[in-house]
Amino acid sequence: MAVGKGRGADVGDLVARARDGQARAVARLISLVEDASPRLREVAAALAPHVGHAQIIGLTGSPGVGKSTSTSALVRAYRARGKRVAVLAVDPSSPFSGGALLGDRVRMQDHATDAGVFIRSMSSRGHLGGLSWATPQALRVLDGAGFDVILVETVGVGQAEVKVASAADTTLVLLAPGMGDGIQAAKAGILEIADIFVVNKADRDGADTTVRDLRNMLGLGGRHSDAGAWRPSIVKTVAAKEQGVDELIEEIDKHRAWMESKGVLQTRRKDRALDEIEAIAVASLRERMGDVHGVASLSQLASDVVSGDTDPYVAADTIVKEMGH
Amino acid sequence: MAVGKGRGADVGDLVARARDGQARAVARLISLVEDASPRLREVAAALAPHVGHAQIIGLTGSPGVGKSTSTSALVRAYRARGKRVAVLAVDPSSPFSGGALLGDRVRMQDHATDAGVFIRSMSSRGHLGGLSWATPQALRVLDGAGFDVILVETVGVGQAEVKVASAADTTLVLLAPGMGDGIQAAKAGILEIADIFVVNKADRDGADTTVRDLRNMLGLGGRHSDAGAWRPSIVKTVAAKEQGVDELIEEIDKHRAWMESKGVLQTRRKDRALDEIEAIAVASLRERMGDVHGVASLSQLASDVVSGDTDPYVAADTIVKEMGH
Repeated sequence: MAVGKGRGADVGDLVARARDGQARAVARLISLVEDASPRLREVAAALAPHVGHAQIIGLTGSPGVGKSTSTSALVRAYRARGKRVAVLAVDPSSPFSGGALLGDRVRMQDHATDAGVFIRSMSSRGHLGGLSWATPQALRVLDGAGFDVILVETVGVGQAEVKVASAADTTLVLLAPGMGDGIQAAKAGILEIADIFVVNKADRDGADTTVRDLRNMLGLGGRHSDAGAWRPSIVKTVAAKEQGVDELIEEIDKHRAWMESKGVLQTRRKDRALDEIEAIAVASLRERMGDVHGVASLSQLASDVVSGDTDPYVAADTIVKEMGH
Repeated sequence: MAVGKGRGADVGDLVARARDGQARAVARLISLVEDASPRLREVAAALAPHVGHAQIIGLTGSPGVGKSTSTSALVRAYRARGKRVAVLAVDPSSPFSGGALLGDRVRMQDHATDAGVFIRSMSSRGHLGGLSWATPQALRVLDGAGFDVILVETVGVGQAEVKVASAADTTLVLLAPGMGDGIQAAKAGILEIADIFVVNKADRDGADTTVRDLRNMLGLGGRHSDAGAWRPSIVKTVAAKEQGVDELIEEIDKHRAWMESKGVLQTRRKDRALDEIEAIAVASLRERMGDVHGVASLSQLASDVVSGDTDPYVAADTIVKEMGH
């Protein structure tokens, strides 16, 4: 159905035009991901020979730390280095994504006339597989389309969004001065996902305190240094004035060089592929679940669980067993 | 393994003691959920005859709107009405859950000496199924343990967290004056999940503007009213001074009465059971995936996807097909 959407453009042609730098072709491919189109199967096949080139940088942080301004500054800096840059703003359409969203999206239009820049918000609202299903496939489109650098900015700040940002080659966690309480509350999570901490708005009071707090939290004081592991670095920026951006890119490159020397880049990409395969397999299994049982029988199982006649484990067993046949 | 954890207490005994009002037994059952214990199967069976009594109220909103203060005020009000109350604070251990978290958890200890109140933060960090797997099972524990009212407060503000809050019988969305930009940015999501909007901190400037903005957004101005549907109500509170809490409970009761009269309560509970069954079935399928293929063969598929020798759809097909045998 919805044949009109492609308007005669077959998938191979769309991919060729995307690789040729046509933003509308790229956008249409990403729409196919958002719509969970059946044609994604063909898209994946057409992209396969072309993937693995892009450097994927994840970017996350609380509302108000300057994520979009930083993304914009990074775009400009990478453009100055001659790179083709894509921005994927993953927006789960959460009701609580914070106030700055719309304005910043507009600000990104600084780059609107630059053919070497592609910017796209993506929502996976309503799709069963959610962000973990849609994001890797969108990244695959951008990678296959030949972008050198892909910035993935997550708008929401929950479990799914953090997972998205942490699945990049290099993950930047943004902070701003005066948000020390949040750091305290959350240290466990931050320690794990950040490859590089960016203390943005570093011209404000308290920037050095934030850096010091971070250092203490990370145990960078010199007490212990695990020789094999990457020690997250800390970079101060004022993205709105484009200060510190070159240093940030230097750190990103340093992290990339470290990953390559240790084989970590390949491991991360394999992990991402595993997640992607699993998400597609699970979505396909979910579909089969519905097929095998029909809506009526699933609904009866749910009623039995509500009434207490059975429990959800027994109900799940019933479904899984039948799938084995 | 970890037999010592149960210290000889079998699951039937734990459930009996939980129903008897022993907080430690309830806490231990919830820990089994967090740990994704194999004993959950027995727990679910032992709980089944006892579920379906509790009223489940979801509570969500941006950092700073006063979620924990509101939860605490609701606990006090329900206790004054003689109800046993449980609070489940669903905390995905997101790095960015906002600064107020720890302090507010402490404040909740107002209720620490009241045997009719059970308060628990739950993290599902690291578990494959995430919040959608763990939360319904924790609610089932609290429901089966005989609590009259269960407040589910989500700490994070992303896709998974909003889904959790919206799976309650009645979902409260909290706002505070002066956050109008956020409303604008997010109206679509808010319209969908809120049964009742709570404008907290209503003694601050701008409270009436927030209410008016909400009304306009909701089309409550009188232009169209869908006769069959629930029209989200708006309640002003100052939770820190316990103002407006009785009115809020009145609205919650009104919503419950409406749901019962329309059969919506039963539908919501069935939907929740369906989600729960599906999450358990998918987790079980994921396990089987690993069993069927072994780590080596999955890893090879991922490598082939990274190198472009195959694409993730073909890789997922391989897995799903083998599961059919």
